[in-house]
Amino acid sequence: MASHRVTLLPDGKTVEVPTGSLVVEATRLAGIEVAQPCGGQGRCGRCSVRLEGDGFRRRSALRLSGADLDAGYVLACQTVIEGDLRVTIPPPETLSRLLVTDRVAAAEALPFRYDPAAMQSLRVFQVTLPEPSLQDSRDDLARFLAGLADAGRFLIEIPLPVLRRLGSDLRQAEWRPWVVVQEDPTGRGGLPAQVIEVSSSPPRPLGLAIDIGTTTVSVQLVDLQTGEMLSSTAEYNEQIARGEDVISRIIYAGRDGGLAELGQLVRRTLRTLLERIRRRTGIEPSQILKVTVAGNTTMVHLFLGLPPETIRLAPYIPTANLPAAYRAADLDLPVHPLASVDVLPGVASYVGADITAGAFAAGLAEARDLTLFIDVGTNGEIVLGNQDWLVTCACSAGPAFEGAGVVDGMRATEGAIEEVWIHSQTIEPTIRVIGGGRPRGLCGSALISLLAELFVTGAVDRGGHFKLDLGTPRLRQGEHGPEYVVAWPDETATGRAIALTKVDVDNLLRAKAAIYAGFSVLASGVGVDLADVRQVLIGGAFGKYINVEKAVQVGLLPDLPWDRFRFLGNTSVRGAVLALLSRTARQAIDDLAARMTYVELSADNSFYDAFTAALFLPHTDIGRFPSVAEIWERADAGRMAGGSSSTAAPGRPGSIWETSGHPANG
Amino acid sequence: MASHRVTLLPDGKTVEVPTGSLVVEATRLAGIEVAQPCGGQGRCGRCSVRLEGDGFRRRSALRLSGADLDAGYVLACQTVIEGDLRVTIPPPETLSRLLVTDRVAAAEALPFRYDPAAMQSLRVFQVTLPEPSLQDSRDDLARFLAGLADAGRFLIEIPLPVLRRLGSDLRQAEWRPWVVVQEDPTGRGGLPAQVIEVSSSPPRPLGLAIDIGTTTVSVQLVDLQTGEMLSSTAEYNEQIARGEDVISRIIYAGRDGGLAELGQLVRRTLRTLLERIRRRTGIEPSQILKVTVAGNTTMVHLFLGLPPETIRLAPYIPTANLPAAYRAADLDLPVHPLASVDVLPGVASYVGADITAGAFAAGLAEARDLTLFIDVGTNGEIVLGNQDWLVTCACSAGPAFEGAGVVDGMRATEGAIEEVWIHSQTIEPTIRVIGGGRPRGLCGSALISLLAELFVTGAVDRGGHFKLDLGTPRLRQGEHGPEYVVAWPDETATGRAIALTKVDVDNLLRAKAAIYAGFSVLASGVGVDLADVRQVLIGGAFGKYINVEKAVQVGLLPDLPWDRFRFLGNTSVRGAVLALLSRTARQAIDDLAARMTYVELSADNSFYDAFTAALFLPHTDIGRFPSVAEIWERADAGRMAGGSSSTAAPGRPGSIWETSGHPANG
Repeated sequence: MASHRVTLLPDGKTVEVPTGSLVVEATRLAGIEVAQPCGGQGRCGRCSVRLEGDGFRRRSALRLSGADLDAGYVLACQTVIEGDLRVTIPPPETLSRLLVTDRVAAAEALPFRYDPAAMQSLRVFQVTLPEPSLQDSRDDLARFLAGLADAGRFLIEIPLPVLRRLGSDLRQAEWRPWVVVQEDPTGRGGLPAQVIEVSSSPPRPLGLAIDIGTTTVSVQLVDLQTGEMLSSTAEYNEQIARGEDVISRIIYAGRDGGLAELGQLVRRTLRTLLERIRRRTGIEPSQILKVTVAGNTTMVHLFLGLPPETIRLAPYIPTANLPAAYRAADLDLPVHPLASVDVLPGVASYVGADITAGAFAAGLAEARDLTLFIDVGTNGEIVLGNQDWLVTCACSAGPAFEGAGVVDGMRATEGAIEEVWIHSQTIEPTIRVIGGGRPRGLCGSALISLLAELFVTGAVDRGGHFKLDLGTPRLRQGEHGPEYVVAWPDETATGRAIALTKVDVDNLLRAKAAIYAGFSVLASGVGVDLADVRQVLIGGAFGKYINVEKAVQVGLLPDLPWDRFRFLGNTSVRGAVLALLSRTARQAIDDLAARMTYVELSADNSFYDAFTAALFLPHTDIGRFPSVAEIWERADAGRMAGGSSSTAAPGRPGSIWETSGHPANG
Repeated sequence: MASHRVTLLPDGKTVEVPTGSLVVEATRLAGIEVAQPCGGQGRCGRCSVRLEGDGFRRRSALRLSGADLDAGYVLACQTVIEGDLRVTIPPPETLSRLLVTDRVAAAEALPFRYDPAAMQSLRVFQVTLPEPSLQDSRDDLARFLAGLADAGRFLIEIPLPVLRRLGSDLRQAEWRPWVVVQEDPTGRGGLPAQVIEVSSSPPRPLGLAIDIGTTTVSVQLVDLQTGEMLSSTAEYNEQIARGEDVISRIIYAGRDGGLAELGQLVRRTLRTLLERIRRRTGIEPSQILKVTVAGNTTMVHLFLGLPPETIRLAPYIPTANLPAAYRAADLDLPVHPLASVDVLPGVASYVGADITAGAFAAGLAEARDLTLFIDVGTNGEIVLGNQDWLVTCACSAGPAFEGAGVVDGMRATEGAIEEVWIHSQTIEPTIRVIGGGRPRGLCGSALISLLAELFVTGAVDRGGHFKLDLGTPRLRQGEHGPEYVVAWPDETATGRAIALTKVDVDNLLRAKAAIYAGFSVLASGVGVDLADVRQVLIGGAFGKYINVEKAVQVGLLPDLPWDRFRFLGNTSVRGAVLALLSRTARQAIDDLAARMTYVELSADNSFYDAFTAALFLPHTDIGRFPSVAEIWERADAGRMAGGSSSTAAPGRPGSIWETSGHPANG
């Protein structure tokens, strides 16, 4: 049999291998470890290398783009050597750039051109006033208003807190004060144009975008003059202690004092986040002059102190979809007391401001192609349409994708496992941890990839049942029933094992089934085939990373070409940032809300049928998921054959395979 | 000597008296007591009787009008019998109607025609809304706003507290709610048009007018739909404990925490008053939907929390003469939290909203004749002019006329002595007590009449010194120096003597001198002779009664014909009531404030000279007070002669002569 000379770069080692060897066999021969978390199945793409020479044949190149293939990239476990070659092993950090699924998976920073001229509802300028004298003894207020009028600013109110400091502020500024005027952020006139700051030096107006999720509250601090994002952080909504989903919150709010308590809890969460921002940036909350708030309708009601009771009862009427802007002091928010708090518009009881803001941030207002927008949170909300028409619905997914309601779940923050691969033969996991340290738990994206890997490797069956007879201690009867151990106690930051239990799997199945049922019912309701959807835009609680392939494998997303998917991260808070920065954006969100037609699924029997059918992996009808069927059948065949990949390296069992390049958003 | 038959009615007794007898001698002969608190000097008018027949000759009829003289009324002590007569002794309660000075003295209820159509800034109406259904699932807010629009009400805000109750209010009203809309009370746009109440039954809007004086806080509760005054009460401003005049308050406000403390003290006073109203009427403060506030500039600053420091320092600049309307909740007033609190406009640091409101209530906006308006409070403020021009100034009088800073002073409330007469020979007092019970102290009007009587009877000299050698125990050296005892311990409600001390007299002299100097300097400044003043309108702290004759005798008021004087009581709170009830009135007060030209007396040496000259009784130049000179000289002559009135009855020493017909305003 012919043998070939393989040079391995960057080391420069050379080995001889027989024709038909895999590239991974050459690297192993040279003593160079190329990780293969999936066990050499061509599933994970982690063994990508670049070849020079043409003496090779690709069995599969599932995750590489055409351009990368042209540049010589191949999967080392799926490429057969048929001639002399030079093999370059890329550093791990380039992998995310190489792999299509990784590229689809990473949440995109949405494009936004900041225009400080068409800025926003805060105006900053300086006025010069004549000094008072016995000849010109006008009161301070009259003098100041005359100065504003000279600067072309009429009909501007001076609220009491500003008036109380006006005398000393004007004198401290030596009658040349800098002024911050707040105009109504909604353009609907809820707040009069008013002075909110008078100071002796140019102020730096800062804004805060808030997304109040049922499970997670996210905030972003923005410099309103430059558009720069100064800080971004998130925390579990402390209301979780009073119920995990909106329905249980609504019921709790109906108790004596319940509404007030829930309001206090979300305010406490916000204070925690503001305190964290203060520690990180040195910026005091009182420097925040403007706030926008997105959130689902129930969360907005609880934040504003509106009783949510009627949201839950037919005909499902909220108190307000289109609230005005309010003063921070009236809402007991510890930012500047005169800051406007602009609560973005919702559409209905179950499609709230988080969806209108998110849909705007995702670009739905200008989408030419048929677009599916999915916001995955505790509720899954779906918008389908384009710039001409939009329909929307909501389905209760539960908080599993946010890491809540799952035994070892957590938010996508430092220490969260965000990706898991499972070796096809050994069933050993390889994990990627946000921040690179020891793991503390599993975030939403990890839960999806873990469930997909367990399914593809045969560790759980299509009904979500663990197979405990595969001969690995990782599949076992745990405290909470059958479970898969992702990390042993001595590998974690907590000293406790991290596992996925049967109960967790059932939660995940219900969550993904609700969302799949939602968009499939919505599509059939308007007579659109899911296959015609040109782009699937996904916002929500997964943090900054999700593996689209895995999401399709579990049946959360429709089986479409990967390049139609874009993961946008938290679109709701992003929409709130855009509304902070631009009056045009703010107006467009109102317009978008007005254009969205709400479909009530609870009155729709077809939703329940669709949900039940979607409770399997990936779906009762696997024909809807051809790419999954192919992988699953191949993997199954492999398992039946006792493992074709005896040549595959075992990888490092339970190892942390790579350090996340994605900054934690916690 | 001829004798005459005198029949005394209503008793029907008949006596025979010699020609030349006084009518009082006839009554005494019949055993009928006609009170003569002044000792038969013709000063007090308390012995007025009606004669039938023409056998009499009047020596004097100082206080009777021409009409009353035509009807046969005479002073019994000043009328000589020269033929047969029928004498009718009127019941005491008719005296106040008879006597010109009493008629001038009683504060007038200013005429006001209430026009509910041109009502005020609160609008009350009912709207009918379609009930929500699955077919019409608009949110409550959108449904409500559409209903308001159907009723012709656009651009109306729903503030957060109303929104929070909207869902339950609409359902309770079965979708036919009554609505109270508040429009900006100032007409200057400080508050947006907003709904402040939604209810299932027609609401009864109530308003509160507040006058914050340096010494006294007065409030009146008004039904805004009928104009009916429901309750009126007053109390010392609790800030007094932190300084008696505005200057000491301003200094106190400059201390650490001083401004906040003074604000709390006036709020506490207001809470006391509201609680009193609640007890009297059963009306909860939260039912008050609108508030107007008058007060001097410093009081307004302290109420609004504006630092008053610059008011005290040249060039005497207040923070605001023309504040906006604010929400009650922002001012921590315990009325309806969304009630507008409309602070009326001031003119300058020392001519505040109390004067503009008072001048409006006094009718200055429409005065054709030259008018002098004097508001006597802790500061004396003066407005001179007519409908074409107005000048104004302020002078510090101190709180003596409000019963403060005087040992036994008190407000004009139940138990206050409001009028004192002193017997010319015995120097025994006769008093009238508000409410008719035992006295507790001396209110402003009593202090003036007491000082005048002491002066006219020679118990104090023109320099204000007590004469301790008149042989009465009432003039004595007291704890605080020389004093006059008005009531002995066993005659009072407190068990302690009520006296006027030398220190009190000096306080009163300074107070009256400041006011006299103020208007005389103002008149000469604009080249007007005081004699040309056609009406003197007096507002202020005297309660509802003051004796104009006594006020002229002490030199507080210029010596003009009595019919030119009108005592109007608390014009400031009255102006605040008018502003509550009528938008036209409210606008007119703004206009009046804009028309008033302020004269700064502190920069004027002539004021100090005029003040010094006015420190005597009635003035250094007694020629300015011809009517007083005449009485004083006659009384002096009587004293020199050892008493011409040996025939006069002694009256009841120290007696409570009559029960006040004037309701207490405390």
